[in-house]
Amino acid sequence: MTTPIRVGLLGCGIVGAATARILLEHADELARRAGSPIELTRVAVRDVTKPRAVALPAGTLTTDAHALVTDPAIDIVVEVIGGIEPARALLIAAARNKKHIVTANKELLATLGKEVLGAAETAGVDLLFEASVAGGIPIIRPMKESLAGDRVQRVLGIVNGTTNYILTRMSETGETFAEALGEAGALGYTELDPSADVEGYDAASKLAILASIAFNARVVAGDVQREGITQISVTDMQAAHELGYEIKLLAVAEQEGGRISARVHPAMVPKTHPLASVRDVFNAVFVEGEHAGELMFLGRGAGGDPTASAVVGDIVEVARNMLTGARSVGCTCYHSDASIRPPGEVRMRYYVVLSVLDQPGVLAAVAGVFARHTISISSVRQEGFGDEATLLLITHSGSEGRHAEIFCELEALPSVKAVTSKMRVIGTAEG
Amino acid sequence: MTTPIRVGLLGCGIVGAATARILLEHADELARRAGSPIELTRVAVRDVTKPRAVALPAGTLTTDAHALVTDPAIDIVVEVIGGIEPARALLIAAARNKKHIVTANKELLATLGKEVLGAAETAGVDLLFEASVAGGIPIIRPMKESLAGDRVQRVLGIVNGTTNYILTRMSETGETFAEALGEAGALGYTELDPSADVEGYDAASKLAILASIAFNARVVAGDVQREGITQISVTDMQAAHELGYEIKLLAVAEQEGGRISARVHPAMVPKTHPLASVRDVFNAVFVEGEHAGELMFLGRGAGGDPTASAVVGDIVEVARNMLTGARSVGCTCYHSDASIRPPGEVRMRYYVVLSVLDQPGVLAAVAGVFARHTISISSVRQEGFGDEATLLLITHSGSEGRHAEIFCELEALPSVKAVTSKMRVIGTAEG
Repeated sequence: MTTPIRVGLLGCGIVGAATARILLEHADELARRAGSPIELTRVAVRDVTKPRAVALPAGTLTTDAHALVTDPAIDIVVEVIGGIEPARALLIAAARNKKHIVTANKELLATLGKEVLGAAETAGVDLLFEASVAGGIPIIRPMKESLAGDRVQRVLGIVNGTTNYILTRMSETGETFAEALGEAGALGYTELDPSADVEGYDAASKLAILASIAFNARVVAGDVQREGITQISVTDMQAAHELGYEIKLLAVAEQEGGRISARVHPAMVPKTHPLASVRDVFNAVFVEGEHAGELMFLGRGAGGDPTASAVVGDIVEVARNMLTGARSVGCTCYHSDASIRPPGEVRMRYYVVLSVLDQPGVLAAVAGVFARHTISISSVRQEGFGDEATLLLITHSGSEGRHAEIFCELEALPSVKAVTSKMRVIGTAEG
Repeated sequence: MTTPIRVGLLGCGIVGAATARILLEHADELARRAGSPIELTRVAVRDVTKPRAVALPAGTLTTDAHALVTDPAIDIVVEVIGGIEPARALLIAAARNKKHIVTANKELLATLGKEVLGAAETAGVDLLFEASVAGGIPIIRPMKESLAGDRVQRVLGIVNGTTNYILTRMSETGETFAEALGEAGALGYTELDPSADVEGYDAASKLAILASIAFNARVVAGDVQREGITQISVTDMQAAHELGYEIKLLAVAEQEGGRISARVHPAMVPKTHPLASVRDVFNAVFVEGEHAGELMFLGRGAGGDPTASAVVGDIVEVARNMLTGARSVGCTCYHSDASIRPPGEVRMRYYVVLSVLDQPGVLAAVAGVFARHTISISSVRQEGFGDEATLLLITHSGSEGRHAEIFCELEALPSVKAVTSKMRVIGTAEG
């Protein structure tokens, strides 16, 4: 065996502690796989006195993260602190000091990926980030390498475990959004401020990374159209079930004619679609390749151990590279001319619920609005009487822009009391 | 752009033609991904006059495969002819002539993998084989690289599309095995001799490759215990449905205490398990990692385009390596001390149907046999009267050996007319 490859870890929270544990407990196995021992040399934390979920060798802990990333005795810097700063500054410094980098930081990559990947490229070091999307599910490497001979047409994923847990509870127990959010909090699945999850920000960051790799073009979090799950009602869930659907928070990226569409929103998915049966905190990414066809990658999208599995896989790759003088595949965003499709142009089907007056001619008035905007209605059902009269419709595929105009005009119709609910429908033969 | 990387293709059947088409039609995209143009230089076939599903450049076709693998103008040899010979001899010659190798040949790798990988190692060339298992689904690379930081405990897969199509038909239409086999044949899903599929040989080869990578130990096709689907009856399928199961041909590899068990057999899978909903010719591989937890990879496991997607992905990896002087991860079977667990020791649950005499004491006699072999019964149901009297049981987990002894003794009981059916049950909390 050669001299050890030395790892410095930035952060020792849930993922950091699990990473340290694997490096320490599986040292022999990892050394055989990498071809050289991998040694956890230093761990930078804010408070060295805090109890940790791992027994670190004496003298490993430090509060000086900057000293770690500039330490000549460290070969690989592993960043699991998350957020933009100080992660950005530390990783840039690490690259300049010729450290290879492994990170799980989706937020940083989805906003300043170009800067960070550029710094690694300039310095000639590896920067790997399998753990940044969908935790323990291998998805970055398969897309960058296994599908390098294919053309990805669409990525469709459930990439946020917290919201998927909430929607699973709502679907299976009939709970309201607020009740299910409480359950998720009690199980430790939510942050103090749950908005990054329930408003779709977390999923948007992950989708930006997936879309960039899928389409070889830079997509940032701000390019992703975003809508959360806070408005989903018990009635929506019931209606979805009656129609044979589940409601999921989907991250969708598509490419057509060099233009990319990326969006995160709840959608009704037919129960026969593989994504409909992805339950609880599981994540799944559905990839459509021109040649490979439909692929799905399913697993645990969060949690210390699954995420650490991905982090250590990346560490082993860097170690193998160091021993053979190889380099991992770097930034693959070479289509600098790709543009983001305006959200209004994206074609979509909608499920719509209207609260209407119980009088003759209502259906004709409603159907007239759809007809004027040349979006046809796939199915319609009338329910209830008097004050409870309701129309439930599913449209055929049409642009988001036209759908938005239709919803405005419907609200203005004298016979329509309110557009009670509207939700996109995905995964059918039409889209 | 640098000088082109030149590919020689051995075989131009369904997969070969699809590979050639991607290389020709996506040449620009592939050149950007690889960093250098990839040129299809030569294609060796048995009959150059045969019509092909791809328009090859003039002068590409040859019947001289040996000249191709020794041609100094070729960098990468892609083998899609299948079978042991002449594939083995050609790949050994290619390696000795310093050609990198991409192959889809599961049979060769599962029987003589050591020799072929050894030849590549000795020559210092890459040998990649993503397409050999589960067609277009990325599974070899994720297991070798993404999970390099984890410990795989179990692999559970549906890796033969033909048998999965047959079982899907039987399940959904009530057809017999023979009828569904006829349907599969009419759709071109079967070979002239369907036994490689329906007797589980094809799945066993793929499992040997998956197990070798999962457990870092050499497992060959002959190590895999194998049972096909020809004995599955309409009654078995109906009983499975009544109990909430689907019947699938599963490939299972497990490791415990350094001993590996690998087997292919039909099994009842609970409808709630993700593998139960894998339909038609789709394949899926379920991987359980100590840290990543449960992962599933789903997609099209056969067909020209999906398999070619994997082949071209490997070609791009080799090309990237050639440009940077890197090497792909080679043979990872470094646990030379791993042994195959005797099949009789493997623990399993069984579903058993007994045709019995309609008389008092039958259940006591049957239960007594299980009790003597200390395997307990999880559920039991009696059905029918007189000549139709039937007992349906599901056992708790116990060794295959004890189950076999029980089946023998049950056959010998005066009150048991026959053991009508017995099938393993998998994917429950117990196993």
